[in-house]
Amino acid sequence: MSKATIKQVAAEAEVSTATVSRVLNESGYVSPEVKERVFGAIAKLNYQPSAIARSLKQDKTFMIGVVVPDISNPYFMGISRGIEDVVGPEGFQLLFCSSDESPEKEARLLQLLYEKRVDAIVLATSGGNAARIGALAASGQPVVLVDRRLETDEDAPPLDLVAEDNAQSAYELTKALLDRGHIRIGVVNGLTRVSTGRERLEGVLRAMKERGLEDRLLVYSGDFSTDGGVRAVQRFLREKERPTAVVSLNNRMSHGVLLELVRCGLRIPGDMAVASYGEVEAGQLLKEPGLFYLDQAPYDMGLKAGEILLRRIRKEDGPAEPFNEIFHHEVKQIR
Amino acid sequence: MSKATIKQVAAEAEVSTATVSRVLNESGYVSPEVKERVFGAIAKLNYQPSAIARSLKQDKTFMIGVVVPDISNPYFMGISRGIEDVVGPEGFQLLFCSSDESPEKEARLLQLLYEKRVDAIVLATSGGNAARIGALAASGQPVVLVDRRLETDEDAPPLDLVAEDNAQSAYELTKALLDRGHIRIGVVNGLTRVSTGRERLEGVLRAMKERGLEDRLLVYSGDFSTDGGVRAVQRFLREKERPTAVVSLNNRMSHGVLLELVRCGLRIPGDMAVASYGEVEAGQLLKEPGLFYLDQAPYDMGLKAGEILLRRIRKEDGPAEPFNEIFHHEVKQIR
Repeated sequence: MSKATIKQVAAEAEVSTATVSRVLNESGYVSPEVKERVFGAIAKLNYQPSAIARSLKQDKTFMIGVVVPDISNPYFMGISRGIEDVVGPEGFQLLFCSSDESPEKEARLLQLLYEKRVDAIVLATSGGNAARIGALAASGQPVVLVDRRLETDEDAPPLDLVAEDNAQSAYELTKALLDRGHIRIGVVNGLTRVSTGRERLEGVLRAMKERGLEDRLLVYSGDFSTDGGVRAVQRFLREKERPTAVVSLNNRMSHGVLLELVRCGLRIPGDMAVASYGEVEAGQLLKEPGLFYLDQAPYDMGLKAGEILLRRIRKEDGPAEPFNEIFHHEVKQIR
Repeated sequence: MSKATIKQVAAEAEVSTATVSRVLNESGYVSPEVKERVFGAIAKLNYQPSAIARSLKQDKTFMIGVVVPDISNPYFMGISRGIEDVVGPEGFQLLFCSSDESPEKEARLLQLLYEKRVDAIVLATSGGNAARIGALAASGQPVVLVDRRLETDEDAPPLDLVAEDNAQSAYELTKALLDRGHIRIGVVNGLTRVSTGRERLEGVLRAMKERGLEDRLLVYSGDFSTDGGVRAVQRFLREKERPTAVVSLNNRMSHGVLLELVRCGLRIPGDMAVASYGEVEAGQLLKEPGLFYLDQAPYDMGLKAGEILLRRIRKEDGPAEPFNEIFHHEVKQIR
């Protein structure tokens, strides 16, 4: 089958080629009725515009790459949904990539997206790629960081960032347990090569130190995974002096903590109090209320990231100061 | 900064340009030590090979597009993980796209992936695009369907498919409830424009008919969403003659069913028995055991899809019969 041209599509739809182009690029107003005729003609003729030719002409691919460490984590998907609700109506498509907390995989994905000429990259970094990411941004590729900041590097120009007040929130979460009289506390920590891992642990330590209880803290590295939460509980329960409360520093690990406590027949919070950095969807199903959690707002963070993306892609701000949006969230309790 | 060439990279790394090319394309053996030197040179010179030039030369982009209706559903992420574990070691990267159960969005994403010359597309369709997908496959783009088959169209050539025995599994799930004496059953159904929605409902109906109970079935359309499960329960509880059991036909809706039952203070299965098509991660946290679920194996399905992808991309099979892999899973009960 010979390839259809845009002229043939226009003739079939009885519109101008400019109208076909507007429909394809989702730019300018085209009535729904005309749009339908154009799509009908495209389908009938099996017209395939060359994206490469188009992207070279327009200097835009209308693709935004989103690289996150765990694509199935509802937190990152909440951020993505917020981004999409801002950039989608402007004609941009999101391509998701999962780095699986692997710096090597992240590096490969960033390279791929750069080569594919995406208009911008949204990144929740797995760590270890600060220099590479700085170089990418310096070469003109818009990069917006979400959730996780780069390792501090004084030479590197700061990048746009939408993140949380991790240390303060983890501090408040720990205080919720201390205020209920817990003094022996187990903390399930994330990856310390990642900023959220470091900052949250710092917040927990500050709360313990204020009460002179830093020696009573048990720290288990749970790698941000459900399995990490499970293993942390197993470890805490083997302790001679068991903790009476657990602070878990992301939603995945908290899910594992709850699963394992329930599996062991322990009541929450009767036998073990739990405070989770982030909401655990399953928390509502617990036998008793009482779970503490930090009520994150990933969707709102995504909306903010989406706005920044559009400004950067449209070069509205020139070489201005980077955006630095820090969200603060509240500690709540399931009742 | 002027752009570095592959020759400069080769000189810097003290290797041949062919070796640089092998490293970039992940083809052929290169020792880890040489690889590291090449990557070091690439980083130092900020070398950016043109992916477009490369893809035209090699006729491969090493990208596989994965289009699913709900990117944050652990079921689809399980399939994706299986695919990645097969194709990743062969140098392919997955790009995920979420159609959000929207046929229009799916159509746009398929077009985008085609234009970006991905080597293959994995699709769990949101429905409504059978003709478009058939045309895509006919034009030589490898397409592997997972979980959901296309609307039957006798003219269309069948495509590779990795799916489940939906009708039979839903039949067995319903029988588990009937065998425990339930006769008034509420079913939370998915989207009937999608094959899994149609086939699972068909299985439920068959089980009810066998007992002459088809009139006692309450059907609520839950759109495969958590919210749909919540609303279904609200609706069932308003019934004059309440059902004593609920069959929910995907994991998302089941999650909503459990949340709402617990919120209403009902015990599971004491006050309401529940059978879920697919595992609900949160099910382990229920006050009492007893939840029935179909134990799906998305990861294994992904492995199979990955094998098919490699064969199709490498054109090992020529224009052979399409693969048609149907998995059957067992009904289990949380104890």
